[in-house]
This record gives sequence, structure tokens and C-alpha cells, in this order.
Amino acid sequence: MCPSPDISGIDRGYIIPIGGAEDKTEQSSILQRFVELAGGSEGRIVVIPTASQLEDTGPQYEQLFSRMGVARVVSIPIDERADAHKDEYLEALNQATAIFITGGNQLRLSTILGGTPVARCIRRQNAGGVHIAGTSAGAAIIPEHMIAGGSSGPTPTEDQVQIAPGLGLTNQLVIDQHFRERDRLGRLMSALSYNPFLTGIGIDEDTAAFISPDGCFEVVGSGAVTVVDPSELSYSSMASVRRGDPVSLFGIRLHILAQGTFFDLDKRKPYVSE
Amino acid sequence: MCPSPDISGIDRGYIIPIGGAEDKTEQSSILQRFVELAGGSEGRIVVIPTASQLEDTGPQYEQLFSRMGVARVVSIPIDERADAHKDEYLEALNQATAIFITGGNQLRLSTILGGTPVARCIRRQNAGGVHIAGTSAGAAIIPEHMIAGGSSGPTPTEDQVQIAPGLGLTNQLVIDQHFRERDRLGRLMSALSYNPFLTGIGIDEDTAAFISPDGCFEVVGSGAVTVVDPSELSYSSMASVRRGDPVSLFGIRLHILAQGTFFDLDKRKPYVSE
Repeated sequence: MCPSPDISGIDRGYIIPIGGAEDKTEQSSILQRFVELAGGSEGRIVVIPTASQLEDTGPQYEQLFSRMGVARVVSIPIDERADAHKDEYLEALNQATAIFITGGNQLRLSTILGGTPVARCIRRQNAGGVHIAGTSAGAAIIPEHMIAGGSSGPTPTEDQVQIAPGLGLTNQLVIDQHFRERDRLGRLMSALSYNPFLTGIGIDEDTAAFISPDGCFEVVGSGAVTVVDPSELSYSSMASVRRGDPVSLFGIRLHILAQGTFFDLDKRKPYVSE
Repeated sequence: MCPSPDISGIDRGYIIPIGGAEDKTEQSSILQRFVELAGGSEGRIVVIPTASQLEDTGPQYEQLFSRMGVARVVSIPIDERADAHKDEYLEALNQATAIFITGGNQLRLSTILGGTPVARCIRRQNAGGVHIAGTSAGAAIIPEHMIAGGSSGPTPTEDQVQIAPGLGLTNQLVIDQHFRERDRLGRLMSALSYNPFLTGIGIDEDTAAFISPDGCFEVVGSGAVTVVDPSELSYSSMASVRRGDPVSLFGIRLHILAQGTFFDLDKRKPYVSE
């Protein structure tokens, strides 16, 4: 599930991972920014509630985005793999200006959507300029390499994290969420230490990274985004430690980014204003 | 409370912060190494149980070190500031080859020992070659700038940590303990972001940093030591954020050091073997 190639002459859409538990009122700075990108009163938003097993997750976001003035909002209740082939859902996705993937369990997203026409459609739409936001599990599924689960704690260990293929909207990032709230630095570093070509971002609750088509992101919300850059890693004991033992890692670069700060994913550089 | 100056021609003693909850059997790799440094069967260890309010904390370490073959072990039950002036306790400290400070509450250590003849004696003895270990609160009190308290979570915030003057055995470090177990990266980074001239070390439980007289430490134990090096910090919002808000920090260097790895505090470099 690699990202769809760029469509010549067209900017990709934004990719917007949210750390979960975002403010779900009309005042939410994150959802306001998302609605604005979607085109506001001209926007057409599709909600994908597949990660959640609560029946009202989709309708709640539908109502919220409608109250925020979006012209057309529809939730597509994909609950099993067969649903991810339905023409009406693909039609809705093809009409969308933005897509919102709710929280829940990211393994439901990967097992139900993986390899289906809906997954392909989401990737193609993003390449064609449609903005894709995901919160909590919906954020985890965004990249090519997804954190499927793991244990908490700041010290990385050999068996702390499970990785699975994600939706593949980006192959530069690994994303973790509920970051401050669930103490997930260790599992994010574990995920990166297998193969340090990726950048890790740990997103606190009520916080989002708005990743622009040119590969820079802005932090919006009340928490922070922790960037873990292993590109200068000089030593890792991952290949030799025993199961459950701590992993030695030398030379991790860490940035804490609160609202109003930015990060250039290509140059791996944080900055304060554009 | 600055470190006592080096005594010409004499190596300082080791400084050994332990992350708390160390294995307290005769097989403990940390306590074995400490006993060895203390001189083993020729050793004279003084235990300072002041941080603890449990009466048997001192006697338990006395019995343990005796079972491990140390010739003379004595616990000096300093319970109020007047005790820290007693000649018999100063005499015991002056005879010691090593001193062990137990866990409990580091504010008991700083409020009861601070500015007393016992505190001065510990610093002078360390400068003269006596090894000083401290576990949990006993580790926190070791440096000049002590973390007195704070809240958990990996994202630093403006009000996350309280700093107080410590025992002053080193002025290069800030030490936090129970690191993995209590999710303390945020408060350690907060402590460093006030003034990034220090290096932060977060020590997991059952883990110790054996800091040699030449300023290198070796990691011993079942967890890891997280080194937070802010010396290349390029931006901090600490001075401008609102109380409780996350602090942006660009360019933190992070190293995870498990058993058998080393760190040179002067060069701020980790390494694998000497």
C-alpha cells in the first residue's frame, strides 16, 4: 500500500493526523481548520466510522460538521470487507472534498479496509487534492507503517510495539496518538529502531499535525507533537537484545512542538513561523 | 551547595544514582558492584535512611550489606536537623569507604540535611575518594539542582516540575528516577528547559549510573538510563508559554542506555565499551 503517485499539476491533499479526544464542539480549533480546508459551506465531507464499534460515532460527526456549516456530510458505515466494495460509498468518496476517519481500533481499519476499493479510492483521492484527517486509530492508520499496538513507558524494549501495514498516505512517518496521555515514547522509539529511515510523530490528545502538500506540518490544538528523528542514530542494540529487555539507542533527535510551530519533514527541521 | 573542590592527587569517589526499587538480594548486580567499590570485606558502609519514614529502612540495608560480606555497616538515623550535627554520625561518615542514601522523600533529605555538618561531610568525603550511592529520593538529592517534585507525562509543560537545591555532588546533571515506571520524561525536559546547561538523566527502577571520577558513567541493572542532552537546543518557548501549556523545544538529543553502555558527561557522548 504505497502512496498513490502525484497527479501531474495537482497538489496532493492535506494529511491530518489527530491525537484523539479532540474538542468536539463547533469551537474546536482542529475541526474548524479541517472544515475550512474542506471548503466550508461548499465542502463535502465523508466520515468513515469503521474503527469504532459504537453505532452513533458516524452520525455524531455528521451532525457536528453539519452544524459547522458544511454543505454535505455523509457517514459511510463500512462494517465488514464486503461494505468496502459498495458503489454508493465509492461514489460518495469520489465526490468528497475531505474525508474524516474516526477513532476506535486501528486493526479494524486495516483488516476491514486493507486492499479494498475504498482504501484505493482514499489514496487516489488524497493524491488528487482531497484532504484526509484521522483521529486516534484514524491517525494511526494513515502511514504506510502503522503502530498496531504495544505497551506504554518511555524506555524502548524489544517487544514493545507491533507494526502492521497501514493506509499508506505517507511513507515518511510513523504516527502514535494519545501520546502524552498514554506514555508512548518507548513504543514509538521501538518502532523507529527497527529501521530508522522513518520519522516518528507522537501526537497528544486534542492536538493535530496539518501536513501540507509540500511536506511541512503545522501543530494545532492544546497539546504537543513530539517528533522523534532517528536519522542520526549512531548505535542500536535492537538486533541483539533479549525479548523484553531495554534497547540502547544513541543519538535520537527530539523536538517538542506546541501550537504555532512547524516541522519540515524533508529537511527534518522544526521552525516557528513560515 | 557546590561540589567540594578536588583534593590534590586524590581521585573523587564514584557517584551512583539508582532509579529506585533495586533488587535487594545478595544477587543484585547494582548492590554487588557498590559493595565491591566500597572495598568488599574491607569496606565500611554508612547508610543514611533520612528520606524514609519507615523505621526499618536503615536496618534492612545494614543487614543486607552485612550478608554481602561488608566488614562494617552502620545506619545513622538522622530524623531531624539536630541529628545532623551529632559527632558520632560525623565520625562514622569520616571512617566510611562508601555511603548509601535510601529512598523516600527527597524533600526530607534536603530540608533535614541541607546546610548541616553531615551534608558538608558527605561532599568532602566524596571529594576525598568515598563513593556515594543514592536510590530513588537518594538519587534525586545527589546533584546541585534537584527535582523536588512534579507531574508525569512525556510532554513538557511550564509548571510540570519543581526544582530545589540538592546535595551538590555534581553540577553537570539533573537526575530523575522511577523513570520508565512513572512517565517522567516531560518533567525532566521541563527541568532542563529552564536552563539548558545541564544534562538530564532519567533512571529506570533497578538501574544505576556508576559515575566514575573521570566523569563517565556505566549503566548497570535491568532497565535503562535515558540521557536528555539539551546542549544543542535551538528554540524553547518556556519563557513565553502560559501556565500548564506545553513547551516547544527544538533540538533535544536523546540517548537510551541499557546495561553495558557508557556515557561521557564532559563530551556528552554515549559509547558501548571503554
